Amino acid sequence: MHERPPLSVTVLGLGTMGTALASALLDTGHAVTVWNRTASRATPLITRGAARAGDVGEALAASRVIVTCLLDHASVHDVLDDHASALTGRTLVNVTNTTPEGSAELASWAASHGADFLDGGIMAVPPQIGTPSAFVLYSGSPSALETARPALEAFGDVRYLGSDPSLAALQDTALLSGMYGLFGGILHAFALVRTGGVTARQFAPVLREWLTGMVGWASSAAERIDDGDHARDVASNLAMQATAYEGFLAVARDRGMNPLLLDPLGRLLRRRVAEGFGHEDITGVIDYLTASTNTTGASA
Amino acid sequence: MHERPPLSVTVLGLGTMGTALASALLDTGHAVTVWNRTASRATPLITRGAARAGDVGEALAASRVIVTCLLDHASVHDVLDDHASALTGRTLVNVTNTTPEGSAELASWAASHGADFLDGGIMAVPPQIGTPSAFVLYSGSPSALETARPALEAFGDVRYLGSDPSLAALQDTALLSGMYGLFGGILHAFALVRTGGVTARQFAPVLREWLTGMVGWASSAAERIDDGDHARDVASNLAMQATAYEGFLAVARDRGMNPLLLDPLGRLLRRRVAEGFGHEDITGVIDYLTASTNTTGASA
Ligand SMILES: NC(=O)c1ccc[n+]([C@@H]2O[C@H](COP(=O)([O-])OP(=O)(O)OC[C@H]3O[C@@H](n4cnc5c(N)ncnc54)[C@H](OP(=O)(O)O)[C@@H]3O)[C@@H](O)[C@H]2O)c1
Ligand SMILES: NC(=O)c1ccc[n+]([C@@H]2O[C@H](COP(=O)([O-])OP(=O)(O)OC[C@H]3O[C@@H](n4cnc5c(N)ncnc54)[C@H](OP(=O)(O)O)[C@@H]3O)[C@@H](O)[C@H]2O)c1
Repeated sequence: MHERPPLSVTVLGLGTMGTALASALLDTGHAVTVWNRTASRATPLITRGAARAGDVGEALAASRVIVTCLLDHASVHDVLDDHASALTGRTLVNVTNTTPEGSAELASWAASHGADFLDGGIMAVPPQIGTPSAFVLYSGSPSALETARPALEAFGDVRYLGSDPSLAALQDTALLSGMYGLFGGILHAFALVRTGGVTARQFAPVLREWLTGMVGWASSAAERIDDGDHARDVASNLAMQATAYEGFLAVARDRGMNPLLLDPLGRLLRRRVAEGFGHEDITGVIDYLTASTNTTGASA
Repeated sequence: MHERPPLSVTVLGLGTMGTALASALLDTGHAVTVWNRTASRATPLITRGAARAGDVGEALAASRVIVTCLLDHASVHDVLDDHASALTGRTLVNVTNTTPEGSAELASWAASHGADFLDGGIMAVPPQIGTPSAFVLYSGSPSALETARPALEAFGDVRYLGSDPSLAALQDTALLSGMYGLFGGILHAFALVRTGGVTARQFAPVLREWLTGMVGWASSAAERIDDGDHARDVASNLAMQATAYEGFLAVARDRGMNPLLLDPLGRLLRRRVAEGFGHEDITGVIDYLTASTNTTGASA
């Protein structure tokens, strides 16, 4: 898959994602060393040709490129702190999910120990790793990117956002936030149709078709939001949508459901109508999410 | 577009959607009569060849097929109740958004006045009407469907769910609920990246790409939900997702945002982890949406 010479790469953390990453590195001919707190999780990879490191020090010594795929920011420090000196001269690629601030902290911590640091946000689930549908957002040191690139290409499409190490985590967080909105909507929709005897399997194809089309709303919404103009060319006015929304919530309640996942947007739509914006698109409610001086959105 | 003889069709309600429907009927050669409470909204359609009805009675007398596209269930009765006798022998197609119960009520009300009734849920925004991306869910009388079909084909793909008139409204409500989850996620995501100086326009393409891929989650989620088995082949475990989710909420708060649209799902994930399901997929939280005897989900 890659034309460049294989790299020596250590993967620290063999949960489902770390295992998928190490497996993709093996598939593309790299020399892979693995370590996991619970050592037994390494066994399938050892069978496939990875080297087992007895401890973290050994794992760091084994490779030029070190990939951390642990639970969270704290666990990265739990694993690396006692072995920080062994990072000198290494390229550290953290793909553990962290906040933008956490990624910036790891970058300066790594630099203080002589490591070149790159942060990554994996936009894929483990079964997608190494397939065309996976992409990974990176930010941090450009030289770390160049050193690690042959390994990174094994994971998915490499998208570099810039040298500020927090950039990938910010966009990763925003993409995942969007996804959880989507997932919440899907869960509510399945719960609702099941009250009418329609199975989730029966409903999934039309739900996918519909939502795939509606994702396109993001583009027109982006224009309204950037321009701060929510009243131009409105095809689906807020007043009409707020009226329908009350109906959806009532249907859910009447059928014994708890519509708690959809309630907050309903409150924002009602508030925005009450404030005189019923003729606009719904995008104007973004003001209630961002105005830090304006916290009444939560209780409106 | 259609091979069948043109129909005479009356459209009651010329908001953005009613106007799009009447326009699509004109485009496909039907004889169209229009009426709107605010008469001036009819003018562009009259210019294009529609006949203007002076009042609702005249509008009902003019056509075999009557389409109501008003604000809500109450407005349909506001418009029709004084002219119910004029519905005898007519085919009434209601595409006003209603609850399943509202659609069932309209069906029996219409039957009591000798009208053949079909309810529709339009799965499109007005600019999509008459394009291949529009589809409309229908339920109710099969003979009403057959009579109105040449007109309905002008709107979008005709999908008939069955003779129970409430079926279309139930699925329409579920699809729109899913969409509002998606829209909430998109609004939160845009608000978040903007705190880091990334514009919504810059972010929209990657957000669309990511969410389009993640819509596919509906299929695997459907299997878990129907089978009640949330522990099989878990690639992204709940404990890990709940940990990351706390991070997303903290990032939003740290940047002065109000994460109220994502808070409720976070509460459900935390509760489910606390109840011992951290090894499962997140789909198990659907139990908190549907168990009517179990209302603590809202306050967990
Ligand atoms: N799975 C996905 O869909 C996905 C997608 C994108 C990004 N990610 C990110 O990838 C990372 C790993 O996710 P995953 O799905 O692989 O999670 P996982 O299956 O739950 O694995 C978690 C890993 O972290 C290790 N760990 C946790 N706390 C530790 C500590 N204090 N010290 C040492 N090791 C510790 C675990 O070791 P033990 O085996 O010893 O417990 C395990 O290797 C997370 O940051 C996640 O957000 C995951
Ligand atoms: N737009 C969309 O994206 C979309 C998509 C799918 C379904 N729908 C559904 O289509 C229906 C119409 O939506 P729309 O976008 O056209 O809304 P709209 O532009 O707000 O138009 C509302 C229409 O209802 C009429 N109306 C409201 N209350 C009335 C009353 N008491 N008596 C008589 N007429 C009344 C209005 O008349 P006046 O002009 O006199 O106010 C207007 O014709 C709604 O049920 C909506 O849920 C809309």
